[in-house]
Amino acid sequence: MPGPSATVSDLSEAELISRIQRQLPPRPDWVLVGIGDDAAVVEPARNRLEVLTVDAIVEGVHFDRAFTPPSAIGHRALAVNLSDLAAMGAEPRLALLSLALPSALPCTDFDAMIEGLQALALRHRVHVVGGNLTRSPGPLVLDITVTGTVKRRQILIRGGARPGDVIYVTGSIGSAAAGLQMLRAATAGPPAMSRTGTEYEACTRRYLFPEPRIRMGLQLSRNRAASSCMDLSDGLADAVAQVAAASGVGAAIDADALPIDPDARAWFAAHAADAVTAAITGGDDYELLFTTRAKWTRRVTNAARTSGTTITKIGVCTAEAGVKILRSSSEGVMPRGFKHFA
Amino acid sequence: MPGPSATVSDLSEAELISRIQRQLPPRPDWVLVGIGDDAAVVEPARNRLEVLTVDAIVEGVHFDRAFTPPSAIGHRALAVNLSDLAAMGAEPRLALLSLALPSALPCTDFDAMIEGLQALALRHRVHVVGGNLTRSPGPLVLDITVTGTVKRRQILIRGGARPGDVIYVTGSIGSAAAGLQMLRAATAGPPAMSRTGTEYEACTRRYLFPEPRIRMGLQLSRNRAASSCMDLSDGLADAVAQVAAASGVGAAIDADALPIDPDARAWFAAHAADAVTAAITGGDDYELLFTTRAKWTRRVTNAARTSGTTITKIGVCTAEAGVKILRSSSEGVMPRGFKHFA
Repeated sequence: MPGPSATVSDLSEAELISRIQRQLPPRPDWVLVGIGDDAAVVEPARNRLEVLTVDAIVEGVHFDRAFTPPSAIGHRALAVNLSDLAAMGAEPRLALLSLALPSALPCTDFDAMIEGLQALALRHRVHVVGGNLTRSPGPLVLDITVTGTVKRRQILIRGGARPGDVIYVTGSIGSAAAGLQMLRAATAGPPAMSRTGTEYEACTRRYLFPEPRIRMGLQLSRNRAASSCMDLSDGLADAVAQVAAASGVGAAIDADALPIDPDARAWFAAHAADAVTAAITGGDDYELLFTTRAKWTRRVTNAARTSGTTITKIGVCTAEAGVKILRSSSEGVMPRGFKHFA
Repeated sequence: MPGPSATVSDLSEAELISRIQRQLPPRPDWVLVGIGDDAAVVEPARNRLEVLTVDAIVEGVHFDRAFTPPSAIGHRALAVNLSDLAAMGAEPRLALLSLALPSALPCTDFDAMIEGLQALALRHRVHVVGGNLTRSPGPLVLDITVTGTVKRRQILIRGGARPGDVIYVTGSIGSAAAGLQMLRAATAGPPAMSRTGTEYEACTRRYLFPEPRIRMGLQLSRNRAASSCMDLSDGLADAVAQVAAASGVGAAIDADALPIDPDARAWFAAHAADAVTAAITGGDDYELLFTTRAKWTRRVTNAARTSGTTITKIGVCTAEAGVKILRSSSEGVMPRGFKHFA
């Protein structure tokens, strides 16, 4: 049994794997071979298509260990992948964990990271069926593959929007970007910068523990309510541009309609940033952007109500190419720093 | 168009993705959504189980860019995964590529890496359906997920050996370990160390471009010829120990029967190393170790002939736990450095 100051380099690969395994629930029937062989073997879901995605989070690029607790690192590694499944309308099924671990990583951090990941996995009934552990001579890297299932006629893609389709976004935007700025300020700044207010708590929590919109993705899919869908991993501005490009349409976004989180708005205002620009270019929100035909409004309302999701109409798809942001104060003018919108 | 000295940091993620896409063959029918959406969508193979595995190779841990050409890095990243499928008796199907790229990586190296990977993928009809690209502040990391298919009653696992089962290994062992030593010596040593002999070529090629034993894995699976199977990624000694432990048996290995590559044996002898120890503890051979019932000999012979694979009987499974190496010179004595054998 390693002491409290033990690092992962004090353990063998087999011991680290057994520390993961002891956090896993019993294997479901459809998993024929799980962790411990050369590969996992599963029974495909009947009458469903399979949805697969992989996403890596890299220390120093996607998270900073100075202010990201290990449980949040584990949570995020899975959440970013589940968000991709949500954007396809898929039901999560299994995950493979590939972790590159710096030798100095404390075992307690390793355990907390797996706990954070596994807590989210349990909530979405994702089963960890295998993976890979290796040493990293550099940053901590968590590379997660997830698969999910979807019916053939219910896949959500980026490329299905038409001119006239209405553009919606789930939840609120900007809080993760504000939360990241708050954490950075608290870490770099004097102790007075360390805030404990509820605004701080809400934004930093949104940054640290993003909640993938799995239920809304499933409801959009099952109600066939969306003509296109994408998650906001790289920010709303990027998502609108990607959906428009994939669909061969343009978009007009009403900046005044954007559901910018009030705490985030206040933080941006206090730090001389334009809230709209900050909110639409900031990443990490993991909300869904989707488009819908005007006549499908009831389907959208049903999907939102059934999944308990707030949604906001933020614009419309246009026949004319390009993305326009309309602001009451400066109509047609692009906010600064808006590099994704050509 | 980036110049000849351009690095990946000169390109956008979209440009790098399009450089991957232009190397891919047309998408097969069963891929409904490929690269370019939030996730890939595929139709599962009919009446088959799905086999999934992930493996990462990390610069400074699994390869050294000083003597590993980019094409070999790409080849290896996929090969180690295909070897895991081979060990399960699975037919390869698709791959997801997750790459963490140092900013200074030349674009020409990036292209060559993908070419090396894609050349192997084509030979085994593996389709790249998606992936992820990210910057790395440290080492180059290639994290590949592959899936394959297998019939329910034909899965090969580690845990099926019984006492009395015969132990085989495919091909030859030791050449990859010798090849790695040759490459290191040529890189670190004076110019005189740079060899160009055919022994050198054969061993270094085995190290740089390992050939996963896909065809033999499939034949063992289809002929139901193996009671257990595993690949030699961490060396033969480790594989024997793992199969024995998973099966609840012991093993007696005849050291004199081991198919140690003659060039590797000569290299080890010239460098004062015990060839048996070096060959069984050296990794990277990516051969298959398998066990079979005595009465299945004809199935094994058929599998080897059909797949064009040489195989060697190297020992037998025992009721008594533990792994013994029997040598004519020192029967029952373990070679030094044999840490995996308790």
